[in-house]
Amino acid sequence: MSHNSFGHLFRITTFGESHGPAIGCIVDGCPPNLPLTADEIQAFLDKRRPGQSRFTTQRQEPDQVKILSGVFADDRTNGPVTTGAPIMLMIENVDQRSKDYADIRDTFRPGHADFTYQAKYGIRDYKGGGRSSARETAARVAAGAVARKIIPGVTIKGALIQMGPHKIDRTNWDWGQVDRNPFFTPDAKAAAFFADYLDGVRKSGSSCGAIIEVTASGVPAGWGAPLYGKLDQDLAAAMMSINAVKGVEIGAGFESAAFSGEQNADEIRMHHGKPEFLSNHAGGILGGISTGQDVVVRFAVKPTSSILSTRKTITSTGEETDVMTKGRHDPCVGIRAVPVGEAMMAIVLADHFRRHRGQVG
Amino acid sequence: MSHNSFGHLFRITTFGESHGPAIGCIVDGCPPNLPLTADEIQAFLDKRRPGQSRFTTQRQEPDQVKILSGVFADDRTNGPVTTGAPIMLMIENVDQRSKDYADIRDTFRPGHADFTYQAKYGIRDYKGGGRSSARETAARVAAGAVARKIIPGVTIKGALIQMGPHKIDRTNWDWGQVDRNPFFTPDAKAAAFFADYLDGVRKSGSSCGAIIEVTASGVPAGWGAPLYGKLDQDLAAAMMSINAVKGVEIGAGFESAAFSGEQNADEIRMHHGKPEFLSNHAGGILGGISTGQDVVVRFAVKPTSSILSTRKTITSTGEETDVMTKGRHDPCVGIRAVPVGEAMMAIVLADHFRRHRGQVG
Amino acid sequence: MSHNSFGHLFRITTFGESHGPAIGCIVDGCPPNLPLTADEIQAFLDKRRPGQSRFTTQRQEPDQVKILSGVFADDRTNGPVTTGAPIMLMIENVDQRSKDYADIRDTFRPGHADFTYQAKYGIRDYKGGGRSSARETAARVAAGAVARKIIPGVTIKGALIQMGPHKIDRTNWDWGQVDRNPFFTPDAKAAAFFADYLDGVRKSGSSCGAIIEVTASGVPAGWGAPLYGKLDQDLAAAMMSINAVKGVEIGAGFESAAFSGEQNADEIRMHHGKPEFLSNHAGGILGGISTGQDVVVRFAVKPTSSILSTRKTITSTGEETDVMTKGRHDPCVGIRAVPVGEAMMAIVLADHFRRHRGQVG
Amino acid sequence: MSHNSFGHLFRITTFGESHGPAIGCIVDGCPPNLPLTADEIQAFLDKRRPGQSRFTTQRQEPDQVKILSGVFADDRTNGPVTTGAPIMLMIENVDQRSKDYADIRDTFRPGHADFTYQAKYGIRDYKGGGRSSARETAARVAAGAVARKIIPGVTIKGALIQMGPHKIDRTNWDWGQVDRNPFFTPDAKAAAFFADYLDGVRKSGSSCGAIIEVTASGVPAGWGAPLYGKLDQDLAAAMMSINAVKGVEIGAGFESAAFSGEQNADEIRMHHGKPEFLSNHAGGILGGISTGQDVVVRFAVKPTSSILSTRKTITSTGEETDVMTKGRHDPCVGIRAVPVGEAMMAIVLADHFRRHRGQVG
Repeated sequence: MSHNSFGHLFRITTFGESHGPAIGCIVDGCPPNLPLTADEIQAFLDKRRPGQSRFTTQRQEPDQVKILSGVFADDRTNGPVTTGAPIMLMIENVDQRSKDYADIRDTFRPGHADFTYQAKYGIRDYKGGGRSSARETAARVAAGAVARKIIPGVTIKGALIQMGPHKIDRTNWDWGQVDRNPFFTPDAKAAAFFADYLDGVRKSGSSCGAIIEVTASGVPAGWGAPLYGKLDQDLAAAMMSINAVKGVEIGAGFESAAFSGEQNADEIRMHHGKPEFLSNHAGGILGGISTGQDVVVRFAVKPTSSILSTRKTITSTGEETDVMTKGRHDPCVGIRAVPVGEAMMAIVLADHFRRHRGQVG
Repeated sequence: MSHNSFGHLFRITTFGESHGPAIGCIVDGCPPNLPLTADEIQAFLDKRRPGQSRFTTQRQEPDQVKILSGVFADDRTNGPVTTGAPIMLMIENVDQRSKDYADIRDTFRPGHADFTYQAKYGIRDYKGGGRSSARETAARVAAGAVARKIIPGVTIKGALIQMGPHKIDRTNWDWGQVDRNPFFTPDAKAAAFFADYLDGVRKSGSSCGAIIEVTASGVPAGWGAPLYGKLDQDLAAAMMSINAVKGVEIGAGFESAAFSGEQNADEIRMHHGKPEFLSNHAGGILGGISTGQDVVVRFAVKPTSSILSTRKTITSTGEETDVMTKGRHDPCVGIRAVPVGEAMMAIVLADHFRRHRGQVG
Repeated sequence: MSHNSFGHLFRITTFGESHGPAIGCIVDGCPPNLPLTADEIQAFLDKRRPGQSRFTTQRQEPDQVKILSGVFADDRTNGPVTTGAPIMLMIENVDQRSKDYADIRDTFRPGHADFTYQAKYGIRDYKGGGRSSARETAARVAAGAVARKIIPGVTIKGALIQMGPHKIDRTNWDWGQVDRNPFFTPDAKAAAFFADYLDGVRKSGSSCGAIIEVTASGVPAGWGAPLYGKLDQDLAAAMMSINAVKGVEIGAGFESAAFSGEQNADEIRMHHGKPEFLSNHAGGILGGISTGQDVVVRFAVKPTSSILSTRKTITSTGEETDVMTKGRHDPCVGIRAVPVGEAMMAIVLADHFRRHRGQVG
Repeated sequence: MSHNSFGHLFRITTFGESHGPAIGCIVDGCPPNLPLTADEIQAFLDKRRPGQSRFTTQRQEPDQVKILSGVFADDRTNGPVTTGAPIMLMIENVDQRSKDYADIRDTFRPGHADFTYQAKYGIRDYKGGGRSSARETAARVAAGAVARKIIPGVTIKGALIQMGPHKIDRTNWDWGQVDRNPFFTPDAKAAAFFADYLDGVRKSGSSCGAIIEVTASGVPAGWGAPLYGKLDQDLAAAMMSINAVKGVEIGAGFESAAFSGEQNADEIRMHHGKPEFLSNHAGGILGGISTGQDVVVRFAVKPTSSILSTRKTITSTGEETDVMTKGRHDPCVGIRAVPVGEAMMAIVLADHFRRHRGQVG
């Protein structure tokens, strides 16, 4: 058991605080002989990196990853390859402004983990949220880049499908749009609307939530396991472990409760000699095991808890007071959750691929 | 790692198939000196037991639990008490009618795990669904009864809050009603409506889904852990591991995506010398750690996949065919998911209570 | 984490007390489609079964194993095969005589776990030693029989090589002798000597220890993993987890401390196109990974703690007293440790085979 | 499961290769509010550090540890304290001379892990032994320093009790001597002898093994757990996971096989109101649980495999050849295993202390 690890055969263990010297992770269980460079990992980190538009926090972190172990190169390898040893990925923190946090060291910000960390540990690193900061998700994204190398036939894509109360129009869905707007949304019209909407949220010192959808194509039938090794169980755990996530669903999810049995159960036909489901309400998973259809997971991100309004709270000594959160923050932390969700999907699939091989392969 | 275990310090490992000789589980990590009798466990099993109303499967299973290990009694103990050794709970199967399933041994029932088990393992126990049967949840309920003994200050209650597309009226909520209707619903009016509605579903050979809400009161602030040891992560995994569950949310859940930061972040005041949150959108969990407020989880159960309509499918040799599922089934398997959800909440809390003690206590 | 489980991908979880209704285990992670019958398992249990000669305890336990889950047969399978689901193996206890133990319920027998169980749990099941009884090893032997099915190319053989202070003469080693004497010793001359020696020990109400050697042939190079996943680490843990074991060594073991570097490092040559080591001081393991040579482990079993001499001890209330252990016991519990050691070797190898496949396969 | 982690509630995950940029570990599960500085950890690393006498490798590594996470200090804490978050300990490598290894990249050194790593992974980092280098033990020593903070009432001391074939005279045992000679031996006379002996070994380009004994005093009765959670099982695994260890024993260990039951079972008396054992053949552990007496473990370290003699071996393409290992090496790697064994004892005890609290506390 480990409170800071995730996965079994492919396993990540993360460390680091928002204002400490570095964050990162150890990636264990990677198969050998996979080409792996820091540049490849960097490409994914750059997607998550803050400060790239006016819609994310203005903290400037280059998020440069270093690989400290687990790869090897000599004049006969074509660049560095994995060796099967643990891969240590380190990202040094650069742009900490810890004085911003001096005035909240004794005050619990509503919606944040201040109160609960203090209640549990009797101490908390309040600088930038310490361990509870969304900065930890950079380690996930780095690990996810490694995970993707393990499942080369699988394509993972994430999209923001709702911002605040505003859903996208799914008939406009175009994956090509996702990288053309700062919101990772596949609906170009929604992107334009979101820009205006989020400017308003940001200028008013408020924040909003979001819903993210992540899809994995190319997952063969048979990954996952019954009951306590369910692929959907691990996806639910993976997404719920991300900061600020309050709900997870697979395929039709909560909507399926309102379906009739006839609507819900995806019928099966043969197509080019392979089983094909006529719908995918199951989100690519039946009985905890992949069906060969797209694996589809959706998760809800609550509004950023750091807001400029004054809120009622208490101090660590139990006195009633008010608090307003200054500092640099994302008005909609759900945006940067898109690459994080993709990374967690990759981590879960890489683990289950190896677990499947371990028992059945 | 284990595909059939759940939990860490308090850990269950289940076994058994629908039509095998028995199902059950080993409960490991139970503290010593807790009084524990089969009767106490039986009370919870009786709640989940099938065949108690016309709204659940007519399979007649007494679900009598036997404790095969881990308790001890002599003339000086006041009845059996736990010893700290693993507790084996066995429930023998009685009412199998395996011939009902002979005609589906080569045909994949849509919505069921038939196709995926076959794809993964190359073999499947098709009798009554084998390992994928909802019968496995009896082992969870039995283990949950043990878990409740470990967290005596905590009260766990579950309720059905939506059947098919029909939500209850939360203003009618009365916990006292939950045990007075066959649906475990807290809204007496909804109960009357559900009876008619489900009769219609059942008579038409169809099925419907449900949404279940489980609440734990009395959980102190401080249980859970950051990031990969989050209380909400483990609750999400626990509920998603139950058969037919397709979505899980904590507190305001998916709805929180539409909130403003002001609406979402629960303000804090002092009340009788203790912190009190003025709302509980967080569902009792911040940063993965309990706040001391009610822990609230909700999950969606898809419609029972066994329906009397003819559905398109394929055979295990890849031929297109149709299938209709006879046999005895729950028209709304979500009903019996209520005690199962309660059990999983108890198991997660018992584990986290001991984990908290382990690191901080 | 689980105090009653062993292994990772291939994992056993055992339960049961000496005088409870049953003992047994859940075997998880078994690959599907392996033929498996209770009779096959029984053959190994019969080797360990007590009461077969005057040199083991006279408790009469048929040790009949039942498979309660995880196998499936229909008219198209050629007998029962594994399905990939957890395999529950149950052995009912038959010949308990609990009254034998009434007088030691408040007295700690030296060398037994009475004192430590009481110190830890504040309660203990003193009947027949409860959970600490060597009866638990029957569950290991049953699980080991399943493990052997997973590694069909591997041959595992165990031998008693020392009884009390008396070593066998290794130049007499003949594996064919092992099943021809009640001591599982490969030295026919030593077997004759041991019979006399152990009669003397038994008649004087004393007991003696033993050293057991277990060899696995046919293990390919590459199983195991560096550092904390070492094959030898897991073998050490496996053997040390057996009751009464006080030491474990691999290959030359403790003797290697006295070697020079030249003597110790096994040289390598090619033989029929395959690497062959000119000696096997390493015991088939280098850097935690198998070399392809025989894997050789040795472990020391202390003398049975139940002896007829009067010994100084204390009561559970801290009064000084004397104790003499009546009841039925093995004068040399190391004899029956031979099949147990073989089983643990099989369990470790089955787990590492699947772990190797999981990462590298 | 993780091949590079050890422990459960207190858990370390190590990374790094001999000639990579850094080695280190993440320490997870540390209780909060323990004062912890890099200096405290450094003191233990300095004990293990190479190049301190002519009897260890001449590689010059300052082994400066940095704490990258998991501690917090502000003007109100009295120096840095743990927060309950994962503690990342990094030691940068400084004195790599990778060219020393170019000629062994295709040749398997007998006794080393070269052959097995290649067989398993199809690739190996041959520079300085890569992941299989004894340098990894620095991470263990750093983690052990943290572990000691968790069990303040426990005193852990290690000693070299045999070098090559030469045992110390236990009647000369004086713990005060251990830090006064470069061998960590408690027998001053033996230390003088070892200096001469090891000079001879070193000058001849040979190497020798050693036996190490580690004792923990102050462990209360009740740590550990039955069967698969045995304290001695975990100690065996811990010591066997150290490079070059080939055997482990507890208390009287292998010698106990030759004892009679009367000799072996430690009698109990009361002393100043507390149970006291009249001997400690059990090594402080009965039934896997601590007795309150000293916990005593002994392990055998094989001779360093790097020797200057020419040895028969094969190349990675299967050709027969000879090899001689140049480079800088310890003539008796067992010396530096003393602080490593102490560290592993501390790690096991810290884990079991927290596990005990988790189930029973």
